[in-house]
Amino acid sequence: MVNYVEKTRKRVKEADVNDLFIHRWSPRAMTGKVLNDDVLNTLFEAARWAPSSMNNQPWRFLVSKRNDKHWDTYFDLLMEGNKVWCKDASHLIVVVSKKTLENCSEYPSHSFEAGSAWQNLALQASLINVVVHGIGGFDYEKAREKLNIPEDYKVEMMIAVGEYNKNLSDEKQEKISGRKSLSEIIINGSF
Amino acid sequence: MVNYVEKTRKRVKEADVNDLFIHRWSPRAMTGKVLNDDVLNTLFEAARWAPSSMNNQPWRFLVSKRNDKHWDTYFDLLMEGNKVWCKDASHLIVVVSKKTLENCSEYPSHSFEAGSAWQNLALQASLINVVVHGIGGFDYEKAREKLNIPEDYKVEMMIAVGEYNKNLSDEKQEKISGRKSLSEIIINGSF
Repeated sequence: MVNYVEKTRKRVKEADVNDLFIHRWSPRAMTGKVLNDDVLNTLFEAARWAPSSMNNQPWRFLVSKRNDKHWDTYFDLLMEGNKVWCKDASHLIVVVSKKTLENCSEYPSHSFEAGSAWQNLALQASLINVVVHGIGGFDYEKAREKLNIPEDYKVEMMIAVGEYNKNLSDEKQEKISGRKSLSEIIINGSF
Repeated sequence: MVNYVEKTRKRVKEADVNDLFIHRWSPRAMTGKVLNDDVLNTLFEAARWAPSSMNNQPWRFLVSKRNDKHWDTYFDLLMEGNKVWCKDASHLIVVVSKKTLENCSEYPSHSFEAGSAWQNLALQASLINVVVHGIGGFDYEKAREKLNIPEDYKVEMMIAVGEYNKNLSDEKQEKISGRKSLSEIIINGSF
């Protein structure tokens, strides 16, 4: 049995940085307990303060709580491999971003900025030992159809949220990922 | 004269959340001092640990240090209104995201995930009172041309990095932004 942060101890820093970024990871093991609204709101509150061009805030979060009337619809969007562990989630979220401004002109940075909001959400979850796990393996078109997502919103990602299950995390052999080196992501001057 | 965080005191939380998300903002006032490489590396180290689908890490950062051989090229990408304050930056960065996987297939979440990495960078900067300010007001196509950015990378954003100038921040009338309410960004179940 290991705690949430303990699993990240093997990550190697290349440069000094606040541990909060190293401690965030994406567990799959959840208990099935329904988290209360205060917990969810603290996650969305973090997301809310992300930066955006002209403070446009293109991020939106569609939310279903375990066993509410939308739960089966959300759950059925998932690919089979993700259903296996998402069955123990408390909430499922679909992240979308608004592709246009009020005046209907295009807003090119909608996805990038929605990603910023998601990262705030993920870090806040990590700070309170709540599992959030971003999911790309779901049916994007079905999500649009079933959740009536308008054409001027892009479907970005799903998120599973839940209480961390300390007892299952080893059993499920969750692996902590490393990263590319700094030299692979930094380009001095020009390609 | 106010310090970096002091300016955010008027922000109103709707739900409990770690102050780090509230304290991050986007100053323009910088001193013109060149920050050392350790400072830059701590920002990129934070970015490096962002999550991505299959750990693909599509984010890349092109970097120019004040007065290095690329500085004028970077600076000339900026719209005139941004040159006014970016002249006091220490570094200018162009964020790009890789649109394809190793096997050349499309990778749809590249922008979203680059936004996550940027948010880590921004939060780490805030934690050490370094200015980072995301910029959409620059010539994207000229950036691609002048920095030889390949077609399979999307140009996402520029970032100005610098030492915070406490003495200028009031003078320049920098305003602290609020946010939409939680009820505007959360959708229960379905649109």
